[in-house]
Amino acid sequence: MTNSPVPRVQGILESCINVSDLNRAQRFYQSVFGLEVMTSDERFCAFQVGHDVLLLFKIGESKKPAQLAGGIIPPHDTLGAGHFAFAISPDVIEDWRAFLAKQEVTIESEVRWERGGTSLYFRDPDNNLLELATPGIWPNF
Amino acid sequence: MTNSPVPRVQGILESCINVSDLNRAQRFYQSVFGLEVMTSDERFCAFQVGHDVLLLFKIGESKKPAQLAGGIIPPHDTLGAGHFAFAISPDVIEDWRAFLAKQEVTIESEVRWERGGTSLYFRDPDNNLLELATPGIWPNF
Repeated sequence: MTNSPVPRVQGILESCINVSDLNRAQRFYQSVFGLEVMTSDERFCAFQVGHDVLLLFKIGESKKPAQLAGGIIPPHDTLGAGHFAFAISPDVIEDWRAFLAKQEVTIESEVRWERGGTSLYFRDPDNNLLELATPGIWPNF
Repeated sequence: MTNSPVPRVQGILESCINVSDLNRAQRFYQSVFGLEVMTSDERFCAFQVGHDVLLLFKIGESKKPAQLAGGIIPPHDTLGAGHFAFAISPDVIEDWRAFLAKQEVTIESEVRWERGGTSLYFRDPDNNLLELATPGIWPNF
């Protein structure tokens, strides 16, 4: 790789959103997506999502650097409605519609993409915009 | 999958951050990470990152719903320093240190994780906190 003009990144490992009530958000992501918590404390919660990591940060708690045994995590913090999308198989989109209804999560919008994919949009308790996306959205998915 | 109590998500497909100057941010992500633009307009820019998608949104431009041919993308918008991490191979971490220095991107901090991974932290032009992470960070990476 040394000859490469730009060293490569393999993919996005961690995505994060900010929430006002970490316990409430944790319950939401566990009950709606069945995600497993890898680590959590008063500052944040890390969920395993396949090979990826979803981080929830409590708003304001990461405005200062976090000192760990192995170094310092620099500050970050956002306000407002974040956004990210989960990939799903087209086979389960009807299961998702039924399951979201059962969980009383309202589908706010739906987009049918030119390439054939479908996106379902809804909100977490902090108004972050979540998306479930089937293949046929992007050239690489 | 119909018998599953919770339908499954496969992974995180799209991650997004907000930027004040879309052209400047686009140049940064192209030059520093060699990312390919899949789609861009005045509102946003979508980069391919392996099997994932990195979305840059111009701050304020997604406060209103976006009407597309296939439906409506609901509003979202954040202010402040967002955060996400790229996965890299441990083989290229020294190449990354050299390349970031050459690009005049300052490594703000470095964390050595108990499981053996390393994280390099630095900023994009909008102060978003970026991380390059080698395996040995999380139970699933």
